[in-house]
Amino acid sequence: MKTVHNFNAGPCILPQPAVEAGVKALTNFKDSGLSVIEISHRSKDWEAVMAECEAQWRELLHIPDNYKVLFLTGGASTQFMMVPFNLFHTKAAYLETGVWAKKAYAEAKGLHGDAAVKVASSADRNYNYIPKGYDVPKDADYFHITTNNTIYGTEIHTDYDSPVPLVADMSSDIMSRPLDVAKYGLIYGGAQKNVGTAGVTFVIVREDVLGKTGRYIPTILDYTSHIKNGSMYNTPPVFPIFIMNETLKWVKSQGGVAGMYKQNVEKAALLYNEIDRNKLFVGTAEKEDRSLMNVCFVMNKGFENKEEAFLNFAKEKGMVGIKGHRSVGGFRASIYNACPKESVQALIDCMREFERSEA
Amino acid sequence: MKTVHNFNAGPCILPQPAVEAGVKALTNFKDSGLSVIEISHRSKDWEAVMAECEAQWRELLHIPDNYKVLFLTGGASTQFMMVPFNLFHTKAAYLETGVWAKKAYAEAKGLHGDAAVKVASSADRNYNYIPKGYDVPKDADYFHITTNNTIYGTEIHTDYDSPVPLVADMSSDIMSRPLDVAKYGLIYGGAQKNVGTAGVTFVIVREDVLGKTGRYIPTILDYTSHIKNGSMYNTPPVFPIFIMNETLKWVKSQGGVAGMYKQNVEKAALLYNEIDRNKLFVGTAEKEDRSLMNVCFVMNKGFENKEEAFLNFAKEKGMVGIKGHRSVGGFRASIYNACPKESVQALIDCMREFERSEA
Repeated sequence: MKTVHNFNAGPCILPQPAVEAGVKALTNFKDSGLSVIEISHRSKDWEAVMAECEAQWRELLHIPDNYKVLFLTGGASTQFMMVPFNLFHTKAAYLETGVWAKKAYAEAKGLHGDAAVKVASSADRNYNYIPKGYDVPKDADYFHITTNNTIYGTEIHTDYDSPVPLVADMSSDIMSRPLDVAKYGLIYGGAQKNVGTAGVTFVIVREDVLGKTGRYIPTILDYTSHIKNGSMYNTPPVFPIFIMNETLKWVKSQGGVAGMYKQNVEKAALLYNEIDRNKLFVGTAEKEDRSLMNVCFVMNKGFENKEEAFLNFAKEKGMVGIKGHRSVGGFRASIYNACPKESVQALIDCMREFERSEA
Repeated sequence: MKTVHNFNAGPCILPQPAVEAGVKALTNFKDSGLSVIEISHRSKDWEAVMAECEAQWRELLHIPDNYKVLFLTGGASTQFMMVPFNLFHTKAAYLETGVWAKKAYAEAKGLHGDAAVKVASSADRNYNYIPKGYDVPKDADYFHITTNNTIYGTEIHTDYDSPVPLVADMSSDIMSRPLDVAKYGLIYGGAQKNVGTAGVTFVIVREDVLGKTGRYIPTILDYTSHIKNGSMYNTPPVFPIFIMNETLKWVKSQGGVAGMYKQNVEKAALLYNEIDRNKLFVGTAEKEDRSLMNVCFVMNKGFENKEEAFLNFAKEKGMVGIKGHRSVGGFRASIYNACPKESVQALIDCMREFERSEA
């Protein structure tokens, strides 16, 4: 195999033990003579995977007993409308920190019009910071935030105190740091960054936020259907859940979320320090809001014409997925949990070498 | 590996070349040095898989140009509500041929009350036949059918002439026979029987049935969002789509759907003939409506107390997944496309041996 350093924004690098376990299970699951994708989801062997996966979520994030953990499908984009379907009664509040936050808000607005309110936005500076100092209406049914903004490289680093149930899209930073789950009403996300492959969506929900809308909720969109059926209301996405379970085993082996956080802080510091030091590059996000997951940077003033050259240079050195999103430009290195420090160091070496070559 | 004969109802046996291709891609996708679940869904290599998968659907089923092919998530249960969300305007008609058909109807009723009408039901005889001789209201927006009823072993063997757009849940018999797609307005299903593993849902939709509701449709539930974005409105379920594409390659290698149909007719005839011949067993479905996919049978009169003994006997011989659904009892052998004739013959041998041992 070629040596590559995988900085894809998602789907992205996964822990290699999880991928290897996937290969094994795909070939012969628990010595059944069958592939994990050929067995009944009602079999004991499969139910054991589901149970282990939930238990690992609970253990790793210290999820209190009055919260349910669900494994659904449809990604965060599906949660954008499931949240208002299940939680909206009279008013909802949204914080706009990027395009995904905006899309979440748009679904609430599409369903409930002006009763969905935007409390603050960082659109004025292309979402390069996290708004502060706004008020959350105390009569809102919930307050929705996006904790990490992959495109812009900003992140909410603390668990907010909210006067109403806090709903968080944590698609791209779940399991990257210890979390006080009790401060949230609902947490959701697509798995394809820190907790597995595309095709499974996690939801952590405090039971008392449900059942208050007084409306018909289509069965498959109703969290209570999935709660009652242990995430098996219908056939679950078997293989993505298998990979999620293996990914969580790896997180545990790294010292859990505390261990991951330590590694993530270290990796991000190395890379941001290089960006700040290297005369060719400049970071795009406000320093205090810089994401530990997605490091966004562009060519510094005077070097704008070197962008293509650096992309090619880095590609030659085995860097994959560092082109920035078109709405920010430049570069984005996604250094999720499974991205090894060695890859971060390889990118730094690459930036230094390019700087020398341009001297 | 143990020799097993996999009769699981779904997730179920898959073509072994598809599973093997999955193992290879999981290890090193197209010599990228990365797993197929670690690459960007916006990469050329991935877009090529999506395009090939759609092209294969079109080729195998001769799908006319005015139909779109979509790869979504959430299974048939999600389509139960997406269909009314997208197609319901004033009235919808449903045929009730089993529990899945009933659930589809319930979602239309939940959203639109009595404007969702049931044209006929076979609930009076525990869904062991397909109703005939009913009228479909000509002012309905669509007429919904479930072509194969896994639990009861019944199947609609022809493409109905419908006065209004025909909507078909083909989760468990798609690709099992040639199809006149032009007779349908919309066809959908979960992949986990004949076209892959759980986690991806196919939709084939004639464009002119869309855009008529006059209501806000949540973006992710709107077929037009997915049409505009080539099934990449959000991150697609990468691995399940990969397996689907490989499964279709295998279908093609078997002579396409005509080849599959020939094999399916032969396999089903062998097994039904044995059920009809063997004094210990009796089929549960009306003969003319017998499914080619799910063969349901129970112990014959006088032998009811042998059920447990036969299950154990068959298990010893390597038969997996032949216990019938609790609402029918007895046995169900699911003999989907990928189930080899050898497995059907092994089950027949097992039935004969058991008959001799009971003589």
